[in-house]
Amino acid sequence: MDLQVQFGLRVKELRLKIGLSQEALAYKAGIDRTYMTGVETGKRNVSAKNMDKIIKALELPVPEFFNSALFN
Amino acid sequence: MDLQVQFGLRVKELRLKIGLSQEALAYKAGIDRTYMTGVETGKRNVSAKNMDKIIKALELPVPEFFNSALFN
Repeated sequence: MDLQVQFGLRVKELRLKIGLSQEALAYKAGIDRTYMTGVETGKRNVSAKNMDKIIKALELPVPEFFNSALFN
Repeated sequence: MDLQVQFGLRVKELRLKIGLSQEALAYKAGIDRTYMTGVETGKRNVSAKNMDKIIKALELPVPEFFNSALFN
């Protein structure tokens, strides 16, 4: 699995954990909802800038966001 | 500091640690050398696909790559 897909799975995992809808997370991150759908499904080759927005919206330090077996 | 810049600093730190030139790391990652310069200097909004190539070329698990104070 490549990072693009792994990133999406991790975002979804954490989003559900804090009980946010995709729309709510997209709004909080300042990202278009359809773009967020593409990120979570691994279809979007998400950029560092948008990763940053999403991770900040999840309120997690970057090291903690990537500290998951999903990325092994 | 945003993720784009932090990522570049971490790549440079790890590249120097294993004694690779920018050119050698770019070649190993299958990425253009000038693009790699842009990544290291934080000028490139690097994508997940290219992050993946670079991290794999550094031979580090993704969680370990991001496990650095640079990302706090």
